[in-house]
Amino acid sequence: MTPRTTHHAPRNVLHLECVICGDTYQPNEAAYVCPKHGNEGILDVVYDYDVVKERVSREELARDTSHPTIWRYKAMLPVRQDAEVPPLAVGGTPLYQTERLAAELGLKHVWVKDDGRNPTASFKDRASAIAVVKARESANTQHAIRNTIITTASTGNAAAALAGICASIGQENVIFVPKSAPEAKIAQLLVYGSTVLLVDGTYGDAFELCLESAETYNWYNRNTGYNPYMTEGKKTVSYEIAEQLGWDAPDVVFVSVGDGCIIGGVHKGFKDLLAMGWIEQMPRIIGVQAEGSNYLAEAWENGEDVLSKPAIAANTMADSISAGLPRDRIKALAAVNETNGAYITVSDQQILAAIPTLAQGSGVFAEPAGAAAFAGLQKAVESGLVNSDERIVVINTGNGLKDIRGAMASLKVEPFVIRPNIEDVNAIFK
Amino acid sequence: MTPRTTHHAPRNVLHLECVICGDTYQPNEAAYVCPKHGNEGILDVVYDYDVVKERVSREELARDTSHPTIWRYKAMLPVRQDAEVPPLAVGGTPLYQTERLAAELGLKHVWVKDDGRNPTASFKDRASAIAVVKARESANTQHAIRNTIITTASTGNAAAALAGICASIGQENVIFVPKSAPEAKIAQLLVYGSTVLLVDGTYGDAFELCLESAETYNWYNRNTGYNPYMTEGKKTVSYEIAEQLGWDAPDVVFVSVGDGCIIGGVHKGFKDLLAMGWIEQMPRIIGVQAEGSNYLAEAWENGEDVLSKPAIAANTMADSISAGLPRDRIKALAAVNETNGAYITVSDQQILAAIPTLAQGSGVFAEPAGAAAFAGLQKAVESGLVNSDERIVVINTGNGLKDIRGAMASLKVEPFVIRPNIEDVNAIFK
Repeated sequence: MTPRTTHHAPRNVLHLECVICGDTYQPNEAAYVCPKHGNEGILDVVYDYDVVKERVSREELARDTSHPTIWRYKAMLPVRQDAEVPPLAVGGTPLYQTERLAAELGLKHVWVKDDGRNPTASFKDRASAIAVVKARESANTQHAIRNTIITTASTGNAAAALAGICASIGQENVIFVPKSAPEAKIAQLLVYGSTVLLVDGTYGDAFELCLESAETYNWYNRNTGYNPYMTEGKKTVSYEIAEQLGWDAPDVVFVSVGDGCIIGGVHKGFKDLLAMGWIEQMPRIIGVQAEGSNYLAEAWENGEDVLSKPAIAANTMADSISAGLPRDRIKALAAVNETNGAYITVSDQQILAAIPTLAQGSGVFAEPAGAAAFAGLQKAVESGLVNSDERIVVINTGNGLKDIRGAMASLKVEPFVIRPNIEDVNAIFK
Repeated sequence: MTPRTTHHAPRNVLHLECVICGDTYQPNEAAYVCPKHGNEGILDVVYDYDVVKERVSREELARDTSHPTIWRYKAMLPVRQDAEVPPLAVGGTPLYQTERLAAELGLKHVWVKDDGRNPTASFKDRASAIAVVKARESANTQHAIRNTIITTASTGNAAAALAGICASIGQENVIFVPKSAPEAKIAQLLVYGSTVLLVDGTYGDAFELCLESAETYNWYNRNTGYNPYMTEGKKTVSYEIAEQLGWDAPDVVFVSVGDGCIIGGVHKGFKDLLAMGWIEQMPRIIGVQAEGSNYLAEAWENGEDVLSKPAIAANTMADSISAGLPRDRIKALAAVNETNGAYITVSDQQILAAIPTLAQGSGVFAEPAGAAAFAGLQKAVESGLVNSDERIVVINTGNGLKDIRGAMASLKVEPFVIRPNIEDVNAIFK
């Protein structure tokens, strides 16, 4: 196809490129995936960095006193510069240096990036914020997307993120979740006013039905590992990490991996910064999977082709990273392969044990999938995958309040039960 | 007593002043309460605003590009300017203008201050951050506080806040909670590594036992409505609101009220700003109580003396504002009386209904106590307590994820249950 642009396309985007065949498309030529490769043909957004650099510099960012959110990097995102953005303060999450945790591990420099501090308490807000902007943009182009409704399938954080950000602008949305989803997570979606469809089937069934419904009704499709722009929201975490470290990129980044979209975003962010000359090195990216949901770790270790490797039966209590066939597996493998990184696995027991260790060492209370990244660091220290001088960042992808049952399962101590008198207190402390 | 200073006392503090008798003490002369008035003799921290103004200006704040936290106002806080502060990013929470919610209420200017975005997901982090700094300071003075341990009684947010902030610096702490406290809240404390004492008795029993234990063991006492510095942490919310509105103070602020410490802090913050000439008007402060926990509303309506008015039997599902005898009742009444404000009450039903209304109108998911403030605004509109041109701020004091059962009770809609085929989707949308 002949590339063409419309006045609606963001000028900083050169084209979309299929991760399988490398063919390129203008944003208005391919709504989501490569026409030649169907749902596996995920597209990567390719930028014209000259245009980006005309618009923003590290010095300008240093002078920006507005409340820090992902939108401070708007010039580096695939949205029009005049696009209205949803009001919830997404991103701008803290990066904590954790000297005690580092010392316990025999390391010198460990930071925790706490993405549980996002509006709906998970990393996924970074993607959903972009989804809402792109949906509105699509509604104004010749594309047939009607944009009355945004849809996604999800069992957890992505659904809450879409529901919350849509609520902030009164945007109608439809969420497909398996009927078995925990009542509490469904409650959160209903509080935000989403239309919730409980599908009597697996998550895979819900996903397929969501794709079919989106096509039938011309809804805007936010599904992770399908919509090319979700990675672009997620990459902002790397911008923040680099900026918070004074543009001196870390040596290693640990991130937990389910369907692979977050690790792909982390990689993309650092790639952008390298291309722009804002950082000097690409960190090694370490993907941490649960032993019971180790599709990518297995594929990486055995050098398997993820286009032919069949789904596995995923089973881990870290529900946010439970994925039998990671949808963003091509980007997820590239993130590790192109950065001299690694995939490692941790057991559910190690994940659970990491929750109080991380909380007590840093003040960051993580959900199991978030604590998995720290469990991965612990394991990497044991196996010599990192050395003591390296500057290491661990990303917490979700707030512990998202999974109180997980937190309770992590505990090995009991509270003291006492009568209301000082003698009972004395019995403990004297 | 003759005032004296030590090199340890923050130079911006003139003295502490008893809210009952007005007697003043140097910080090293009274650890917590007025020696003449016991536990009711709460002390107010009085500043030397000339010293404060030497140290900070609105212009300097405008140029501050560091991550926004309460410590950007360090010069206005009762801590030494060189004091080390805990690393968790407390405060700096977003203020959202909510045009749809305003329009639905026939109002023009409504903002929601989302303090559920704090590190442990509630407003109480603002106080606990100060507690930790003051505890360390006390350990370095001639006071007998040993500072090996910080303690508080609480059933909920204050305990989590102390536990989390202590965890961030490896500070030992002991929490007294009634045995009936929800398992999930206890789990959070244990994850953070607190020593948790479940007291077989009421919250009042736990409180009294905590005071006695603190004295017996020389622990630092963080209890709200007892430690004079907690109000000083809480006042930072008003600094932030004023700064986020360009130092044009709002006309009205709505805040929910339990023991009265938050509303006292809100008042104190605006008083500071007025005294410094940074704002031109004091907002009217509206305290919102649950009908089943209306001690202050009743006292205010009937002009009762809160030093003689006995405790009531408090009963509301908004547990964070359930208080039979609000400990900070003198400051809490002053906040309303001195600002031409009001106390109003809302039913538990109105509180519950406000959760989805607020979430769907703003994207802010609040716990019941937080949603109560918005329910108060709804009621105030009906009764003509506010007018359509006024600039109104509603403070959300806690994240909805803190109380998923409350959220579930708030719902009036059901999800659709469907089979995994498009016909079932069509039946809903066609």
